[in-house]
Amino acid sequence: MGYAAFLDRIGQVNDLINAKQILAWDARTMMPPGGAETRAKQEATLTVMARDLLVSDDTRRLLDQAEAEVAHLPADAVERAQCVQARQAIDYHLRIPGALVAKRAELGAIGHEVWAHARAESNFAAFVPTLEATVALNREMAECIGYEAHPYDALMYRFEPGETVASLQPLFATLRAAMLPLVRAIGARPAPRIDFLQRAYPKDAQLAFGLSMATKIGYDLNRGRLDTTVHPFEVSFTRNDVRITTRINEYWMPSSLFGSLHEAGHALYEQYADPAFVRTPLATDLVGLYAVSGVSFGAHESQSRLFENHVGRSREFWELNFPEARAAFPEQLADVDAETFWRGVNRVAPGLIRVEADELTYDFHIMLRVDIEAALIDGSLKVTDLPAAWNAKIKEYLGLDVPNDRLGVLQDVHWSSGQIGTFCNYTIGNVMAGQLFKTAVKDTRVAAGLAAANYTPLREWMTEHVHQHGRRYTRNELLVRATGRTLDPAPYIAHLTSKYSTIYGL
Amino acid sequence: MGYAAFLDRIGQVNDLINAKQILAWDARTMMPPGGAETRAKQEATLTVMARDLLVSDDTRRLLDQAEAEVAHLPADAVERAQCVQARQAIDYHLRIPGALVAKRAELGAIGHEVWAHARAESNFAAFVPTLEATVALNREMAECIGYEAHPYDALMYRFEPGETVASLQPLFATLRAAMLPLVRAIGARPAPRIDFLQRAYPKDAQLAFGLSMATKIGYDLNRGRLDTTVHPFEVSFTRNDVRITTRINEYWMPSSLFGSLHEAGHALYEQYADPAFVRTPLATDLVGLYAVSGVSFGAHESQSRLFENHVGRSREFWELNFPEARAAFPEQLADVDAETFWRGVNRVAPGLIRVEADELTYDFHIMLRVDIEAALIDGSLKVTDLPAAWNAKIKEYLGLDVPNDRLGVLQDVHWSSGQIGTFCNYTIGNVMAGQLFKTAVKDTRVAAGLAAANYTPLREWMTEHVHQHGRRYTRNELLVRATGRTLDPAPYIAHLTSKYSTIYGL
Repeated sequence: MGYAAFLDRIGQVNDLINAKQILAWDARTMMPPGGAETRAKQEATLTVMARDLLVSDDTRRLLDQAEAEVAHLPADAVERAQCVQARQAIDYHLRIPGALVAKRAELGAIGHEVWAHARAESNFAAFVPTLEATVALNREMAECIGYEAHPYDALMYRFEPGETVASLQPLFATLRAAMLPLVRAIGARPAPRIDFLQRAYPKDAQLAFGLSMATKIGYDLNRGRLDTTVHPFEVSFTRNDVRITTRINEYWMPSSLFGSLHEAGHALYEQYADPAFVRTPLATDLVGLYAVSGVSFGAHESQSRLFENHVGRSREFWELNFPEARAAFPEQLADVDAETFWRGVNRVAPGLIRVEADELTYDFHIMLRVDIEAALIDGSLKVTDLPAAWNAKIKEYLGLDVPNDRLGVLQDVHWSSGQIGTFCNYTIGNVMAGQLFKTAVKDTRVAAGLAAANYTPLREWMTEHVHQHGRRYTRNELLVRATGRTLDPAPYIAHLTSKYSTIYGL
Repeated sequence: MGYAAFLDRIGQVNDLINAKQILAWDARTMMPPGGAETRAKQEATLTVMARDLLVSDDTRRLLDQAEAEVAHLPADAVERAQCVQARQAIDYHLRIPGALVAKRAELGAIGHEVWAHARAESNFAAFVPTLEATVALNREMAECIGYEAHPYDALMYRFEPGETVASLQPLFATLRAAMLPLVRAIGARPAPRIDFLQRAYPKDAQLAFGLSMATKIGYDLNRGRLDTTVHPFEVSFTRNDVRITTRINEYWMPSSLFGSLHEAGHALYEQYADPAFVRTPLATDLVGLYAVSGVSFGAHESQSRLFENHVGRSREFWELNFPEARAAFPEQLADVDAETFWRGVNRVAPGLIRVEADELTYDFHIMLRVDIEAALIDGSLKVTDLPAAWNAKIKEYLGLDVPNDRLGVLQDVHWSSGQIGTFCNYTIGNVMAGQLFKTAVKDTRVAAGLAAANYTPLREWMTEHVHQHGRRYTRNELLVRATGRTLDPAPYIAHLTSKYSTIYGL
């Protein structure tokens, strides 16, 4: 009785969060421009009501009763995991004073415009006061949330629970040690052809081809749809309605093709969660007030990067699927074969912009940001010293000079929304993808499927070991159950080394 | 202080209601099929939370304080009108037990499928138990809501406050007395050509032409958008985002053209409400938990019918705008002139289906339904006797035999959702449109505008006299302020008589 009533209540919280996400999706895809102001108020109200309902006396009483009712079950029972998720989230929210939440919302509301102006004019000074306020606010939030070693750990909790500055430092060191020599070596070798990727590819044909590849890896259109947006994303409104978007560049076809595979990879995590978890804590990020089944942002990114890179940028994939690409773009690919296509879409080209980075150099953009954020939060880096620190790291990692802050420290939207602590998941996703893919292909059904352009066994393996569990296990528990190890960069490094050695003849 | 806090609170209620409507719009236009089940739960949660927040002790305390704070203002002050709207709605909701609300939601949830099956098989008997339960439930609701003379009055309150069976009977009698002879006389005259309306009109061109006409009468695309749906509708998410939909029949072009004008007419009421009323009770139907500025469903229908029929089906409109139609459809309209086009789109053809009815016979479908609903509610008509009563009225009014219940009593979706009392507004809208249009064209700016295909003065007149006021005045107060009279069918009858006498040479 108590447990059922508790789940009903969380179902309502989930409904409110889902409604907010539907409004946000609509705002980015369908809403006429005039609707922005009132839409922001509607989204804010839904967020506040979801949070207030979650931490209300009534919900806490229901949770107390539910915990008592399931206390006799084994520690790893689903029912107990449901209660733990809710309890942790309620504790988290109660540690943060309402005034602080309101202050961050306010900062986020004005920050975007300040940042957009500063970026347009490449004028970092104009963004300094906002960023200083954001850093101060996040430091204050970190103190409320609590941490053992480093205040930045508290900020990462919302996105990558369990990850800390101390745990990331050796991981990053290992990645840098392996990947920097690769980047250097590749820079000294001739680049593969990419001219054919820069030809005119009609938008409708790109959209259709990307969607065809997305459904091929398992994206279910009965519970999904693809639209175009300026910034691509995936969002779910329960597993029954999981939508993706893409951006189409008429003269750079990999953008929407791999973007669609990336977002479809995210979507699989949601579409194949256990149906019994719908509207429950195990399919709701109650800490972030975000309707999502994935157990962490990094775990989520592992699925997008796995299907984008390990599947979609593999030699085998294009050996099998290039005929379909050529059928979709007969003129553009007339003088290209599968091997040339595969090499082209894997070209490494160090650049200044994170969202345009290739598979190999992407992590440097992330490591740079995580290190800088942690230093801002612990006070060892001043906001005013940020551009110099940024530019020095870009030079160190990628050998590039940053000509202005628009192409440097002002490029990302994240800080303008009041958020700090969101970046590490991209690299963790890459590392996890390497581990999961290596283990999955040891399964003969999976390997046979990949060799026959049948991606269902791989998707089913991921569903069995990752998707279905939702938020039941921590990210590291999930990794140990699936691969036998916690986070381990070796398979990812081996994957990069092997692929780029072949392509660049290292 | 109290008044401002009260408005803030109602703003949140409005946000929840708007969110529900955005979810409903999405479900009808964008949602993948698999999303239906969880979407229904999300919409239900938002409705329950909006209602609960509205009637909560906290909101009532805020309202008490607000009422005290504005008590010294004149009785017709906006602030007092805001309080009155909220007070009436709270009283209304508190009269209806939660169990009854839940029962109707349940009935509505299963009713649609039962009805859809019964209708597909033209099997009224299969729908009888559901309809009997719906009638019983609505009778129970009427007793809770309260009424003076007839229980049906209580059910109409939510849609057309102030209207009663006693007030409708003389109105209907007057309309019938004037319109039945018109229908009979027209039946004896040769029909205008309509063959050119049945040619193949490409869907995209129809959509573009309908939208062009909609923007011509004032529909603002910066705060709106047009999509296609099976059942066309208009919905607003505050005045800043007012969307319309249309249905396109490739071989019957008036369907989407006049449908778009109709829905755009609805949209004007919302888009041109006083901006100061956004998120307040004067722009929210707190009784029906529906985000709408229009003061009653009938008042809303007056705007759709006015722009569809008095403007869009007028001789003057096509004298001026036919060249645009011909440019959009050069082949289809090659052998047609403005006069022929105007006569064709005004052809009278009594039929069995309400939603396909022409301007003249539409009201008979409405009067029949209102009379039948009232009789079901007061018990003078049994559900099992409904088909016979229906068919007899169709024969009496339109001279048609109903071959089966699919084309008769099972045609409308309304009863399957648990709703009774929703129909009278269509005819009230027609009557009001006649009054408002007659008064508006006495304004020389309006008349000059219409004669020059400039519809801005008419739209501005409607904004001044209708749109801007939102829910500030009752429907009859609004009518008296705008036209000097309460509901009066004479201008509507004069309009019909004059137009059809010309077209049919009566």
